[in-house]
Amino acid sequence: MTVPFGDWMKGVQDEVEHALGAFLPDAGAVPHKLHEAMRYTTLGGGKRVRPLLVYASGALFGADARALARAACAVEMIHAYSLVHDDMPCMDDDDLRRGKPTVHVAYDEATALLVGDALQSQAFQVLAETDTLPPKQVVAMLRLLAAAAGSAGMCGGQAIDLDSVGHALTLEQLERMHQLKTGALLRASVVLGALAGRELAPHELDALAAYSKAIGLAFQVVDDVLDATADSATLGKTAGKDAADNKPTYVSILGLEPSRALAEQLRRDAHEALAPFGEQALRLRELADLIVQRKA
Amino acid sequence: MTVPFGDWMKGVQDEVEHALGAFLPDAGAVPHKLHEAMRYTTLGGGKRVRPLLVYASGALFGADARALARAACAVEMIHAYSLVHDDMPCMDDDDLRRGKPTVHVAYDEATALLVGDALQSQAFQVLAETDTLPPKQVVAMLRLLAAAAGSAGMCGGQAIDLDSVGHALTLEQLERMHQLKTGALLRASVVLGALAGRELAPHELDALAAYSKAIGLAFQVVDDVLDATADSATLGKTAGKDAADNKPTYVSILGLEPSRALAEQLRRDAHEALAPFGEQALRLRELADLIVQRKA
Repeated sequence: MTVPFGDWMKGVQDEVEHALGAFLPDAGAVPHKLHEAMRYTTLGGGKRVRPLLVYASGALFGADARALARAACAVEMIHAYSLVHDDMPCMDDDDLRRGKPTVHVAYDEATALLVGDALQSQAFQVLAETDTLPPKQVVAMLRLLAAAAGSAGMCGGQAIDLDSVGHALTLEQLERMHQLKTGALLRASVVLGALAGRELAPHELDALAAYSKAIGLAFQVVDDVLDATADSATLGKTAGKDAADNKPTYVSILGLEPSRALAEQLRRDAHEALAPFGEQALRLRELADLIVQRKA
Repeated sequence: MTVPFGDWMKGVQDEVEHALGAFLPDAGAVPHKLHEAMRYTTLGGGKRVRPLLVYASGALFGADARALARAACAVEMIHAYSLVHDDMPCMDDDDLRRGKPTVHVAYDEATALLVGDALQSQAFQVLAETDTLPPKQVVAMLRLLAAAAGSAGMCGGQAIDLDSVGHALTLEQLERMHQLKTGALLRASVVLGALAGRELAPHELDALAAYSKAIGLAFQVVDDVLDATADSATLGKTAGKDAADNKPTYVSILGLEPSRALAEQLRRDAHEALAPFGEQALRLRELADLIVQRKA
């Protein structure tokens, strides 16, 4: 009998929380403040969307559990570092994240800078120390993660986002920005989980890329809808921030109801991309639903 | 006949400059400003001490030229990113680096933050894309670089340095801080060059570690001597900054002449550590001399 989605999700979240705790440096080790702040920002919060994608894709490709834990923690550390740096005064200048004071508020700016830098190194270290897969596969995963994190991926999207503040963007420009800023790491999560199982045929990689593209855009459309409609307590971060910052969003370009309709269409696109995998893609389908139907 | 040291050094520096240019994203690719700033800060300057160590060690272990170029560029990108972040206002707040305005001055703070982040990813990508060595060896090199860059290496040393401002440090505490802050990446450079040749026996790794420890400390002692005695134009960065910031240095703890004597002792220690390798370690010996005898 298949485990209900909610139980599966809770199981993965618990496993990832435990693994992150083990893979992060001990707060008792020097330098204490840096290690404490790395743990403060990474542990005990977040929806763990990226680790869930790693595990869901891993389930489809019969991946090794220890390799999945490392891939999931690596991608979550990259995500966590990006949040710490994005929240800094010279970027989005945000005080609240996952319902807690951001690192530069709880500690100081220099510590926030170093926490992000050290988390990025830690992510590559955790992945490189995978010893339950052939080295060739580990190298492929490291290449994928590095490309997704860098200037042709997440950092590049962030740079385009910065340059776009106060500019009118077309829907195509907005889409390209988000495909890099959040989409690249979501896609990497899906492919990392698969590679933890085995090498992929080109048509399998194409199907996963189509799925990832749909959920990546859906994720952002829903983020914009929630930013425009939910309150800060529900979101665990400052609501209405995009409008206040005059940032282009799906809601500002398309309007609220068309944005909701787009998210629903993207959910159906994601399901369709998974069709070749049949029943085995259950967890990836359920995650597409979760991403579109979430309330925070 | 052996190529004179100066010619060998110039050859490596030119080769690294060319390889960095090829491995960095094209400034014509979106996002332009980010890519332009990554190239601005990495190309056209610097002594390339770390790449020189990679090549010198590679020469000793018969390393593949293409693997050496990747390892040298990876370690130089980690070094370059750390300089960009260290110069930011929330850290050392420095306006001048390698004789040019720092990235946050020439561009802006947000760009400096992203340039550092993207350079770190790029470093791991360049190394992971090594395709002239067995994957097992590439994974070993990635583990080494990640550990040297992270909270148990360079970032950790930076955190200890921050916490030490205005505190009286003992010589032992100062040494430990520098062994992480600069020593970890210098050691990684030496070992990466060797691993690009072949796997190392424990006694070879020990000898390289002893050499690296000596030149790492020597590097810092000489830095402190130069900061206290040279001018900004010669250094290409702001001179006298440590004293102005009330930072503990070898000169402030030991005095100027004893610091010079210590650097010379460390140079001899480095030579001694290389004794088991005989004549083949020529370039590593010459680099120890360069590090101690440099004027900037």
